[in-house]
Amino acid sequence: MAIGVKPIPLTIVAQVLAIAGAIMVLVWCIAFRGGLAWESSNKSLIFNLHPVLMLIGFIIIGGEAIMTYKTLPLRRDVKKLIHLVLHAIALILGIIGVYLAFKYHNESSIANLYSLHSWLGIGIIVLYGIQWIYGFLVFFYPGGPTAIRNASAPWHVIFGLFVYILAVANATLGFLEKLTFLETSGVAKYGSEAFLVNFTALITILYGGFVVLTVFSQAPPDEDDYSYSAI
Amino acid sequence: MAIGVKPIPLTIVAQVLAIAGAIMVLVWCIAFRGGLAWESSNKSLIFNLHPVLMLIGFIIIGGEAIMTYKTLPLRRDVKKLIHLVLHAIALILGIIGVYLAFKYHNESSIANLYSLHSWLGIGIIVLYGIQWIYGFLVFFYPGGPTAIRNASAPWHVIFGLFVYILAVANATLGFLEKLTFLETSGVAKYGSEAFLVNFTALITILYGGFVVLTVFSQAPPDEDDYSYSAI
Repeated sequence: MAIGVKPIPLTIVAQVLAIAGAIMVLVWCIAFRGGLAWESSNKSLIFNLHPVLMLIGFIIIGGEAIMTYKTLPLRRDVKKLIHLVLHAIALILGIIGVYLAFKYHNESSIANLYSLHSWLGIGIIVLYGIQWIYGFLVFFYPGGPTAIRNASAPWHVIFGLFVYILAVANATLGFLEKLTFLETSGVAKYGSEAFLVNFTALITILYGGFVVLTVFSQAPPDEDDYSYSAI
Repeated sequence: MAIGVKPIPLTIVAQVLAIAGAIMVLVWCIAFRGGLAWESSNKSLIFNLHPVLMLIGFIIIGGEAIMTYKTLPLRRDVKKLIHLVLHAIALILGIIGVYLAFKYHNESSIANLYSLHSWLGIGIIVLYGIQWIYGFLVFFYPGGPTAIRNASAPWHVIFGLFVYILAVANATLGFLEKLTFLETSGVAKYGSEAFLVNFTALITILYGGFVVLTVFSQAPPDEDDYSYSAI
């Protein structure tokens, strides 16, 4: 079910959205929320690393990992290597981002793992890890038999997109949850910070939409003539 | 990019999830939150109609509209009629559900349209309406020229799934937002109500996942031999 659009224009739009989203989350956490810190007596600065790492590290780099496999005019094995390395970077930064949420909670005596955002977050990291390990073993090294590769390829795409869409959705849950807490503590509901956070969430959704759309776009001429579905 | 699974088993799982989700949201709103009412001095009862209508009316019936087009062993024009009627019912119940959120806010002097959930909700209803009108005009009555139908068909599927996934994601935002408010007002973070709401959200996500998976499953033998992509 390919759509009649070439992937390059979609990817360009996605890059613009990625840059916008990255700037917006940094402006929010640094200019509005006081900055970023691994260690600080102001525990909020530790929390601030969480949205920055999850959006720039996990969502944006994870999206780049998905798009590069479709769009780069390179040999399939080179694209595969870039795909799995970028996904590994996204996963590691995502795990560090999740760790920082726990670190903030623990150092501030806030309960862990009660919210839907936290439940989904743990589930997504686990599923992302399983997807990466399965992809590595079956499609990269040592590589599964051809029959298993062929049967797995569409599932790899579908399951990968499912986990990625969940990650984007969970980012919006995180933005809403944090902003709701801030508004309960006095941040204006129609103020500039509230608008910045909500628009960052909208930009994140649009970025995720363009990443997914890229997968369904027409495959470019490939150096060894494989399409996306022939992993 | 069809996956090697028949749509019927996926649809059966979706139906089980739909029933579970419908029961859970009713138990939450009736047993835990005091019941449902169009008019009441207890304004919370008016709010309670919102999640019930949005989940059962909009998300579940909207999902059925998507799945029936893929799974029913009927003539294409019959399936198309069922598809557009179910989507119309979903849209109308969704609009009523959104109206009730405003009604609750207005009668309780709560601000409107400040949260990401409300912004996305309005956007989703508008996009759903546009998608329905476009689909009606081009694929049903009066019907567009063949070239426009063929060019529109994959976009109708992709855009429809985008809006539907947004709706499911926004339902999870709604569950999280309401539960966060309730927890701020004293509902236990690890209590039975919190678990019920979070699990209802998880069931909603799984239902949405199975609805989308149905679209990518193998088309069944069709009475007039059309697949999903040939609308």
